[in-house]
Amino acid sequence: MKLFQNKKIPYICTPLTGKNKEEITEELRIILPKKPDLVEWRADFLEGIEDEEYVLSIADIISTASDIPILITIRSEKEGGEKIPLTEEEKVNLLSKICKSTMAEMVDFEASNAPDHIMQLRKLSTEYNKQLILSYHNFDRTPSNREMMEHMSRTASFGADVAKIAVMPKSKEDVLRLLEFTKQADDALDIPIVSMSMGKMGSLSRIMGWAYGSVITFSVGKESSAPGQVPIEKLRSLIRSTQEIVGEWG
Amino acid sequence: MKLFQNKKIPYICTPLTGKNKEEITEELRIILPKKPDLVEWRADFLEGIEDEEYVLSIADIISTASDIPILITIRSEKEGGEKIPLTEEEKVNLLSKICKSTMAEMVDFEASNAPDHIMQLRKLSTEYNKQLILSYHNFDRTPSNREMMEHMSRTASFGADVAKIAVMPKSKEDVLRLLEFTKQADDALDIPIVSMSMGKMGSLSRIMGWAYGSVITFSVGKESSAPGQVPIEKLRSLIRSTQEIVGEWG
Repeated sequence: MKLFQNKKIPYICTPLTGKNKEEITEELRIILPKKPDLVEWRADFLEGIEDEEYVLSIADIISTASDIPILITIRSEKEGGEKIPLTEEEKVNLLSKICKSTMAEMVDFEASNAPDHIMQLRKLSTEYNKQLILSYHNFDRTPSNREMMEHMSRTASFGADVAKIAVMPKSKEDVLRLLEFTKQADDALDIPIVSMSMGKMGSLSRIMGWAYGSVITFSVGKESSAPGQVPIEKLRSLIRSTQEIVGEWG
Repeated sequence: MKLFQNKKIPYICTPLTGKNKEEITEELRIILPKKPDLVEWRADFLEGIEDEEYVLSIADIISTASDIPILITIRSEKEGGEKIPLTEEEKVNLLSKICKSTMAEMVDFEASNAPDHIMQLRKLSTEYNKQLILSYHNFDRTPSNREMMEHMSRTASFGADVAKIAVMPKSKEDVLRLLEFTKQADDALDIPIVSMSMGKMGSLSRIMGWAYGSVITFSVGKESSAPGQVPIEKLRSLIRSTQEIVGEWG
C-alpha cells in the first residue's frame, strides 16, 4: 500500500505508547475502533526494547490486530523520545529487522542521525517496500524559515518518502509562520510534508495544517505522545467541518 | 449595554439583508432563535431607503423584535454595499436619525468617508450612547501590513470604539498574514479589532480570527452579506470546539 494516494488528506495518526504487551493490547482495543488512518507505534516507550525477539513479537501482535497502516518509530531521546538502552547502530539494526519481518507500512527516523545510518535504513526500507519518514523535532522553539528549510532539504536529499517537522511555538505568530513554512516546503519539495506546531498554542496547526500542505496530523488515541495532541474524534470532526467550509482549497 | 465586556469573544454577528419589511420580518423569525451575539442590519439592502419615515419604522420593527444587540450599517457601494440613492451627507443624516430614535447599540461607517461626516457621526453616536465601528474593506486584495495599519490608525484617530478590516486574500499566505496583522493591530491599538479575510479561502479567518484578536465574526443567518460567511450553527460549533482545544490563549 502506498500512502497518500486515493485518500483524502490529512491522515489522522494515533500513537501507541504502551510500555508492555498488555498496555499495547489495551491501546489497540481502544484505538482501532476509532479508525485512525495510521497507527504509529512509538516503540521507544516499550520496556525491554533491547530484547529483539520480544520487540518482534509485539510488532507481530500490532500487525495482526491492525488493518490500519502502521508506522514504526523509535524516537531518539534528543528529539523527544523515551530514554532507551540502545545505541543508534543497534536502533538501526532493530528497525531493519522490523522492516524485514513485519507488515508495517512506514518507518520514521530522525534526519539528525548519522548519514550512514540514514542511508542504511533508506536502502533497507526501499528493499522491503516501507515508506521512510525522515523527521526533525525542536521542543524549544520554531527555528527561522531558512533553518527549517535546510532541515527539510536535508531530509529530501536522503531520498525520504515523507519529510516531517515538529516545532515549538513561542508566540501565536510562530504558529502562523509554521503554517506558512509548510506551504513553502510543500511547494519546494517533491515529497509530502508533515508539520506541526506543538503545545496547546500550536494545536491550531493540528487542525488547520492540511490546508497548508501537511498530510498527517497526530491525535491522541489513548495517551498523548507529544504536547498539544487532540483526541481523535474531536480532531476528525473539526477537520471535516472546516474542510466543508473551506473546500478543496487546492 | 457596552459590548465586549463580560462576554466571551468572538461575538458572532449575523446580517439582515432583506429588501423590504416582509423579508426582514422573515429573516428575524429565522435568525433570532439561532441566538447570534449581534445582529447587523445592512440597511443598504432596503428598497425605499430614501423614505426616512419608512426606514425608521423598519428600525423600530427590528429593535422591538430583537433582544439581541443591533448594529446598523448602510454599507457604501464603493466598499461592497448595495447601490442606493442617498448621498454621503444624506446617509449621515439618516444614520443620525436612527441613532437618535432606535435602540441600536452600534453603528458602522466607512473610515474612507469624509472626515467631517465621520466626526459628525462620532459626536452623535457618543451623544446617543451608540458604539461606532469604523471600517475598511478591500474586495480586491490584502494590502501590505503597513497599509492596513495606516487604515486602522486612521480609524482609531477618529475615536472609533471598534476598528474593522475586511480584505480579500489572493493566496493562502494572505490569510495567515491577515491573522498576523490582526494580532499586530490588537497590540498596537487601544480599541477592539474586527478582521476577516474574505472569500472561501479566507473563511479560515472567520473560524480562527478570535485567536489573533478579532472580536466579531460574521456568519450567515439567512442570507450571506459578504463572500465566505459560514452558517451560524456551524461557525459557533467550530469556534467552541477549537477554543476547548486551544484554551484561553490570552
